[in-house]
Amino acid sequence: MTAYTDLMAFQRDTEALAQVAGRLAWDQETMMPEGAGPQRAEEHGAMAGILHARRIDPRVGDWLDKAEAVDDVAAANLRHIRRSFDRATKVPARLATALAQTTSRAHRIWAKARAEEDVAAFLPALQQVLDLRREEAAAIAGNADRYDALLDDYEPGATGASLSAMFAALRPRLVDLRAAVLDRPKPPVLTGTFDEAGQLALSRKLALAFGYDLATGRIDKAVHPFSSGSGLDVRITMRTNPADPFNCFYATIHEVGHAAYEQGIDRAHLLTPLGAGVSMGVHESQSRIYENQLGRSRAFTGWLYGQMRDSFGDFGIADEDAFYACVNRVSDGFIRTEADELQYNLHVLLRFDLERALVSGDLAVHDLEAAWNDRFAADFGFAVDRPSNGVLQDVHWSEGLFGYFPTYSLGNVYAGCLHQSLRAAVPDLDDDLARGDTSRATGWLRSNLQQFGGLRTPVETITHAAGFAPQEGPLLDYLETKFGAIYGL
Amino acid sequence: MTAYTDLMAFQRDTEALAQVAGRLAWDQETMMPEGAGPQRAEEHGAMAGILHARRIDPRVGDWLDKAEAVDDVAAANLRHIRRSFDRATKVPARLATALAQTTSRAHRIWAKARAEEDVAAFLPALQQVLDLRREEAAAIAGNADRYDALLDDYEPGATGASLSAMFAALRPRLVDLRAAVLDRPKPPVLTGTFDEAGQLALSRKLALAFGYDLATGRIDKAVHPFSSGSGLDVRITMRTNPADPFNCFYATIHEVGHAAYEQGIDRAHLLTPLGAGVSMGVHESQSRIYENQLGRSRAFTGWLYGQMRDSFGDFGIADEDAFYACVNRVSDGFIRTEADELQYNLHVLLRFDLERALVSGDLAVHDLEAAWNDRFAADFGFAVDRPSNGVLQDVHWSEGLFGYFPTYSLGNVYAGCLHQSLRAAVPDLDDDLARGDTSRATGWLRSNLQQFGGLRTPVETITHAAGFAPQEGPLLDYLETKFGAIYGL
Repeated sequence: MTAYTDLMAFQRDTEALAQVAGRLAWDQETMMPEGAGPQRAEEHGAMAGILHARRIDPRVGDWLDKAEAVDDVAAANLRHIRRSFDRATKVPARLATALAQTTSRAHRIWAKARAEEDVAAFLPALQQVLDLRREEAAAIAGNADRYDALLDDYEPGATGASLSAMFAALRPRLVDLRAAVLDRPKPPVLTGTFDEAGQLALSRKLALAFGYDLATGRIDKAVHPFSSGSGLDVRITMRTNPADPFNCFYATIHEVGHAAYEQGIDRAHLLTPLGAGVSMGVHESQSRIYENQLGRSRAFTGWLYGQMRDSFGDFGIADEDAFYACVNRVSDGFIRTEADELQYNLHVLLRFDLERALVSGDLAVHDLEAAWNDRFAADFGFAVDRPSNGVLQDVHWSEGLFGYFPTYSLGNVYAGCLHQSLRAAVPDLDDDLARGDTSRATGWLRSNLQQFGGLRTPVETITHAAGFAPQEGPLLDYLETKFGAIYGL
Repeated sequence: MTAYTDLMAFQRDTEALAQVAGRLAWDQETMMPEGAGPQRAEEHGAMAGILHARRIDPRVGDWLDKAEAVDDVAAANLRHIRRSFDRATKVPARLATALAQTTSRAHRIWAKARAEEDVAAFLPALQQVLDLRREEAAAIAGNADRYDALLDDYEPGATGASLSAMFAALRPRLVDLRAAVLDRPKPPVLTGTFDEAGQLALSRKLALAFGYDLATGRIDKAVHPFSSGSGLDVRITMRTNPADPFNCFYATIHEVGHAAYEQGIDRAHLLTPLGAGVSMGVHESQSRIYENQLGRSRAFTGWLYGQMRDSFGDFGIADEDAFYACVNRVSDGFIRTEADELQYNLHVLLRFDLERALVSGDLAVHDLEAAWNDRFAADFGFAVDRPSNGVLQDVHWSEGLFGYFPTYSLGNVYAGCLHQSLRAAVPDLDDDLARGDTSRATGWLRSNLQQFGGLRTPVETITHAAGFAPQEGPLLDYLETKFGAIYGL
């Protein structure tokens, strides 16, 4: 046995245990009896303890020091394990425990503060979480940038400075496009009710149309849609709302994008560090290209219009063009998770700039709400009316997830790049999409990106698939062309 | 921190991890996508490795040596942990690995051999499993009895000799009762089909009628009915067969008996060694008294008859008395799992005597089929027609579960004792049962037995609840009275 073989055998069990822990979380959202909560918290804690102990096991350090990479796959495996080991061992146990306890408490305080529209009640807890994450970032970063150390957990290799430059180029053109679009007449809005059975059936049909493999997955209802698991067991959830079938359908397509990435990874990488999506941003690129560039395209919505007519009869939208405009309707709103494709990134960029300033110390917690409201008014042209529509709307900061938000927009930028190259590679793709056939599109993504899992870095992954380095231009061009056509700009 | 406190904190995480592993098995039978099998096997293996490592952790031995019991609960906790530690540390790692691999292989060989009616194809694998279990038993037992060492894993404190004496008293009266009953005219048999929706609804109603708590449980369909989990998350499964609603209903009541035991344990014992049923035999006493002494009683079947008429209309059984006889119909059969209440123990006693002889070396594997067939003919009065109806019918031996079978009959003997005392304590219980109200019966079981979990030994548990030491007389008296009345003996 070589050090590499020993290390990979140990890592394989760790990966398997991580899958078990992930499925426990899935169970909690889908199957767990309501009274099981206190016991489940202890089960999660025990699994987290086991996983943490394995990640900082001194034997891993020894094996890493001795192991030699005989090929690209081995080099990538060693890179992933080294990164995880270095991060985990740099954080003192005392700090890791304090973070777990403080974020758990802050999450409860945030939920109450949001319900009561009481920002002041949340700020002390937010300050504690921020202080601990800053301390963690300093432990990991040494003399390097703290925000980058946090960001690196979600998007290895990304830096706040590079994202800031990219987003600075994105923001003005999005603000202008938004203002121009909202100056035009509104497309029709969906009205009426859509029965749950019909939504469930069509949601399932959409999942299969986008290549979701039910032999290694399953679909359940949950309060929030999500994708869970890697390898041979990748499950998704969805929800229905009688008044809003688009929420069900597009959340399903979005989660299928995440799941298809996991299901599409070469099975040689099963239960290794390469056997999961390489970063949050690359993951989001898959969910967003499935949902938006493909699922909300004129061609695909033409097919979906027919499917909805078959399922629900005449639902008040006259034709495919009106349906396409309805699906892509842009309107004012406060909430990121409800935002349309055009405005979504403006919500994210706002959070990125604010959290980066919080972590650097340039913005104090007690100035956060004012900074949020100023920025929102500047980009969206109207004022935040209450905290639950503003600074208290998202769960992330209460859970300490600083550095997570930008991966949403990075995913959209990546999706823009991938989409441009996909269209060049398959010029007649719309003929497929108009028949509800995504196989050439998803096949291109699988063979150019998904199959490789964690083999390359995130930027290398996108560069390899798109044929050029990630950049914001293709996304902007796509959005301006698409919404310009819909709104007659 | 005292040694006891440290030990219990460590043990609590172990118990929580064991619950996670158990839920993983539940998921496999109810939710897992069909293609996830290979990955799931690795997940199970990783969890088993973690649990085994914790059970033999040298710190557990140190803590056990230093810990002092300040009360009965602490003494019982130490007794359970000591027993688990001693058993686990006596079995060499090489032997544990060989057992896991050999039983996994033997299980597959058994399934194929049973399908092909080929005993000879199974015997070499059975010999390997038996040899390894004998080796394991010797490692645990030292100079003591090997079968007792295996039995002790399922029924702590029980011995082959004491069970043999009890079963020897059981067998002749059961053989005689069976012969007398089968000499009488047959009760009506259920015919027709019973729709699945009706079975599912009534099955759920029965679960609730027997006190199953859905706030800490859930019911799903599976190939085999089972109960899974302890504490605040105790799940059961059931199945339906259009021609056989009794299978659905009585399997549900049986599993609710198991689940009610787990749900009924004092929550102070949550995630401690006392927080689960104390033995297989005591567990089976709960499932069987729910299913048989309560669920198949004249009074309760009178209520069930009305429920079935409400659900399925006239299904061809004239009245409550005919329905009671139909539910308790005795007829010839080869298969243990399909046996009625009267004959069931004869199937078990046969297996107990044979496996005890296998482990002692008094019976050779190549003589097993002949010994089975001779014993079956002696007790049941007709010949086994093929191996799948005889020696190949059960999965247990292929999985190395020697010492497990007798706990089924021990559970029935325990149920007989508990039932006698329950009837004495609640003389008008039939008035309740005739209304479908089991609350005084299940309440008596909860307060006299279930709540204590693992506080006492199995025999102490039954003795405390029944008010006398376990003995076969009450079960025999009950069966002779019940079937004597139904069959006019």
